Formats: sequence, structure tokens, C-alpha cells
Amino acid sequence: MQNLAMQTSSRSLRGGIDLGGTKIQAVIVDAESRVLGAARRPTPTVGGPRDVVRELAATLRDATREAGVELTRLERVGVGTPGAVDGRRGTVANARNLPGFEGAVPLVSLLEGEIGAHVFLGNDVGVALDAEARLGAGKDVGSFVGAWWGTGIGGGVILRGERWLGRGAAGEIGHTVVKRNGARCPCGRRGCLEAYAGRRAMELRARKLVERGEKTLLFELMEKKGLERLTSGVWAKALEKQDELATRLVERAVCALAAALASSVNLLDVEAVVIGGGLGSRLGEPYAARIAERMQPHLFRPDAPPPVRIAALGDLAGAIGASLLGERVAEV
Amino acid sequence: MQNLAMQTSSRSLRGGIDLGGTKIQAVIVDAESRVLGAARRPTPTVGGPRDVVRELAATLRDATREAGVELTRLERVGVGTPGAVDGRRGTVANARNLPGFEGAVPLVSLLEGEIGAHVFLGNDVGVALDAEARLGAGKDVGSFVGAWWGTGIGGGVILRGERWLGRGAAGEIGHTVVKRNGARCPCGRRGCLEAYAGRRAMELRARKLVERGEKTLLFELMEKKGLERLTSGVWAKALEKQDELATRLVERAVCALAAALASSVNLLDVEAVVIGGGLGSRLGEPYAARIAERMQPHLFRPDAPPPVRIAALGDLAGAIGASLLGERVAEV
Repeated sequence: MQNLAMQTSSRSLRGGIDLGGTKIQAVIVDAESRVLGAARRPTPTVGGPRDVVRELAATLRDATREAGVELTRLERVGVGTPGAVDGRRGTVANARNLPGFEGAVPLVSLLEGEIGAHVFLGNDVGVALDAEARLGAGKDVGSFVGAWWGTGIGGGVILRGERWLGRGAAGEIGHTVVKRNGARCPCGRRGCLEAYAGRRAMELRARKLVERGEKTLLFELMEKKGLERLTSGVWAKALEKQDELATRLVERAVCALAAALASSVNLLDVEAVVIGGGLGSRLGEPYAARIAERMQPHLFRPDAPPPVRIAALGDLAGAIGASLLGERVAEV
Repeated sequence: MQNLAMQTSSRSLRGGIDLGGTKIQAVIVDAESRVLGAARRPTPTVGGPRDVVRELAATLRDATREAGVELTRLERVGVGTPGAVDGRRGTVANARNLPGFEGAVPLVSLLEGEIGAHVFLGNDVGVALDAEARLGAGKDVGSFVGAWWGTGIGGGVILRGERWLGRGAAGEIGHTVVKRNGARCPCGRRGCLEAYAGRRAMELRARKLVERGEKTLLFELMEKKGLERLTSGVWAKALEKQDELATRLVERAVCALAAALASSVNLLDVEAVVIGGGLGSRLGEPYAARIAERMQPHLFRPDAPPPVRIAALGDLAGAIGASLLGERVAEV
């Protein structure tokens, strides 16, 4: 990667950071958004915003070292974060997965103080979708619907190559009603897609079924890995071992995803569907094919199903997307 | 209306025809899309395309007489029609509610032969949405989702003031999955909004419940009016008389509409929802308020619910929208 960095040494470099509830992923990219270096650290679970910001800066420095460039060469740094981003004020609020982020945290000024480069903020799923639209699974189409299949279900709609924001909160495909009066969603509502397909809801369901006496390898696999949560890796492993309960719950999630995605295709007739997120990336193509298969009976135009693709940039989509932030400063 | 016509005599006039399965509605409008004359005739139920075209021309002539203008003064005439419109070829196919319209009918050349004006074709619900966007319930917002609540549930999405067409078939909100493995839809799929809220599906359901021994005034009211179908007027009358079964089936429809519309708002975060169609227009504001109320528990942003409005142009939306066709000839 250092060779590439030298080739582009005269060009502007950018940093991108994906701030998640469990990990921080940073990348250094060149003017063509090629990744010159990447690094990852766990997100602090204790402390407060300053501790998180120190880790953001440290992860970014790790990535510059891998890229063989100085931090001072970065023209700007973007951060994709959960919670409510206020681009004008440079704050993040209600990022409940991050320690001390309940109120409005001035992330831009805190991080600029640490790294001395311009910092821009964006929504974590939103920037990942931007990256897929520009550089990934959606780069050859003008429109697609994205479902980010992880702890929850994030998403977004790309129309004419741009994310459609509506009044600012568009993209919540996870809160599509797939079953009226259906399962309780972690959001408190009933029958949302996320209530069936969000990893958190799937884990709650698995725990409940185990309490009722059902058998599964899921929690055994989790403990063997020293984990406290059913991660995407644990689900993948259980599926690999043909665990009956895991297979059933993933199929239930696939059917719910298929119903919500088919509905969005019927409404918007987009050119493609892109599946991202931890579970989406981990389960990959065979599950994209399965979602496509389950969408088929719900499509208004079954003769022209849009391709269902897995996000192409994988774990780096969020960080690469964050590196695109600040391009159009006037809009931030 | 003749005064108005004289005032605008130096300007270009246009004709618009809404070709429905039961009625033909024609309007004559001026350059500002003000209605100068309107007329309505029943759609022929026997014969073939030529019979339908003769009635289209006759209804248009009735409207010109009401407007006090000559047919030759029309700059162009638009027709909103069910079925698959091919704007380039000037044909309509698969309009199964019209006699002899199974195959591709060259409606443009047939009607131009009758009236001697340029004819343009559009989808019936699509042109009604265009009219509401330009001149009706959506004229003050940039984005809305429309649900046309009639025999079936048509719809559309207006973004930045324009109908979003996707790959050509966008807007099918009637085939949003509101309940996986739910009721059978007239389209053959399961759990579609239309299976709960389409007037045809509602009638089938009512007939089934009556067969099972339930009581209702619906069919009595229908027969009293000399009808063979539960029209919007029959439903409205039964609700007025507090018929228990009718009330229950309309509430079921309202809940399904609310779930699908809330899902579309969560995805697109539009500025408004517009309810049109025969049942929508007939039931009016109290039912728009009820749909809004039922949407509320499903909204991702319950603090910012978009207003739910009834289509402002009522029965004339389709014909007025049709009169807008042909504005951008290059795109037709």
C-alpha cells in the first residue's frame, strides 16, 4: 500500500472513520477514494466522549501509519456515527451505544482539537450507503434501496445517484410494518421489519425460545468465543452447523426482509436492492439470493425483479463513506 | 362558465379525459388549467375499442358544449386510462375493465381520427397524481405519497414536484405487504394492502361474511340503488347507517392503509400523504383523519407526522391530470 501512497503523494488524502457501538474503523483514502491504509480498534465502553474521541484519533493515526503518510497530509476527515447528527453544529445526540453520548456531544470540535484537520459528521448507515452508491454495489445503477442488516435494520434510498433524505429522516426501512399487530420491535412499535430481522430482536427471540425449552448451539458458540452477545459471526457459525433454531430464526428474518424490500420495490421500482450491515456482509451472497427468492412472490413486476446484491465495500463501507463527507461543504 | 371561456378565448385550450371502467369524465381547461366545462358518460360495457372511442369523443364534445367552445379550438387532448400505456406507440394494453381492450389498442390514432386533435395517453392514477401535485392537495409540498383508494389501490410517489417512475412501474403502494401470509389479494399475491382495502376485495370479504351468516345492509342498499356492485356510495351509506359489518371492514381497510402509508413515510419521509380514488373522495376528511390516527403508532418520527389530505380535485383529478399530458412531448 505504501507504493500506492507514494504514487498519489501529490494529491489530497482524506480520512474516514466509522464509529460503531463495538468498533472504530478508520481508513485513509486518496483522491480516487482508494484505500491506502486501514485500522480498527474497539470502541470504549466506559468513560465519556473525550475517551471515545481519543480512540478515534488513535485509530486514525494507526491507519495513517499503515498508509505511510502523516496525519497533517489529510485534507479532511469524515466520521460516520450513530445517533442524531447535527451537521451545522457539529454535534451528535442520542447515540445510546456510545458512553456519555446521551446529550449533544460536540464531536467536530473535540476531534479537530485532537487531529488538527477539518472534521465532518454524517449518519453511519447514510455514509455507508453513499459509499456503496458511489464506489460499491450501486455504482452502476441510478437507484436502489439499501437495507443494512445488523443489530437493527438501517437503510436508505438512492435515487438518481443521490441519497433521498426527505425531510431529513428518510431511509427507515427497518420500521416498515411487515405484520400488523405483529412482534414487538426494540423501537417499541409492533410488526416492524426490525422486530423480525434485527440481530438484537433475533437474540431476544432466541433467548425466549431457549427459556421455553428449545435447544440451540447459539449461546454455546457465543460463550466459546468469550462473547456476551450473538454476533454475526456466532449466527454464521450456527447456520454452518445447521443449528435448527438459528436456521429458523434467520429464515424468519429473510422472509421479513423480503416482504419489506419487495414493498419498497413495488413503490419505487428501483434498479437494485443492496444488503449491507454486519449480518448482511457476513452471510453474503447465498442469503442475498435467498432474499431475492422470497421477494419474488410479493413483486408487482415478477418478470423484472431487481438484482439483490451484497454491499461491495464490506466492513469498510462506513469508513470509506465517511471519507466522502464534506465534499459539498455548502450542504453540510 | 361561458364568461370565463370568452375571457380566455385568445389562449390555448386543452381537453382531458379520464377513461374509467364505469365512467368517462371529460373536461375542457384553459391555459391555467381552470375547468371551463365538464361532462360525464357511462363507459360502454359491450362492443369494442371503436365503441369506447366514440363515447370518448362524445363526452369530450359534451364538455366543449358546456364550455361554449368548438372542438377545433383544442390544442391537444390527454386521456388517462387503466392498463399498460405505451406512450410512444400510442397504445393501451391489458385494460381488462374496458370491452375489447385485452390486446394493444391504438387509442391515439383511433381518437385522433374522431376528434382531429393531438391525443396523448397516460396512466389513469398517474395523471390524477400529477394533477394533485400541480394544482391540488400537493401543490404546496415538494414530496408526497398518494394512495388512490378505489376498486383497487393505485398510488404514486411525488418527489421534488415530479412523479417518481422508477423503471416505469413505480407507485404500486396497493401491493405493499401489510401482512405476510395474509389475505389473498385480487392480484393473486398474499397480504397486499389491496387485499384489505381495495373495494373489490372488501366486497368479496363482505359477501363471504354474509354467506357465513353475518348481517349487513350493504347488499340491500346496493339493490335499492339498482346496482350490482358495492360502490363507494353504497359503502358511505352503510357507514352512515352505522352498519356493523361495513364499519368493521372499512376500519380494517383504514388500518391496512395506515400501515402501508406509515411504512412509506418511514422510508421516504415525505411532506404529506394524499388520499384519492372513489372511496377516498367519498369518505373524505373524517377518514383521512382516521388514517392519520392509525398511522401514528407506526411512524418512526411520531413527533412530525405528515398531514394526511384528501385529494382536492375530487372526481375531476383524472381528467384535469390527463389535460396536462403532452406538455413535454419529447418525454412521451
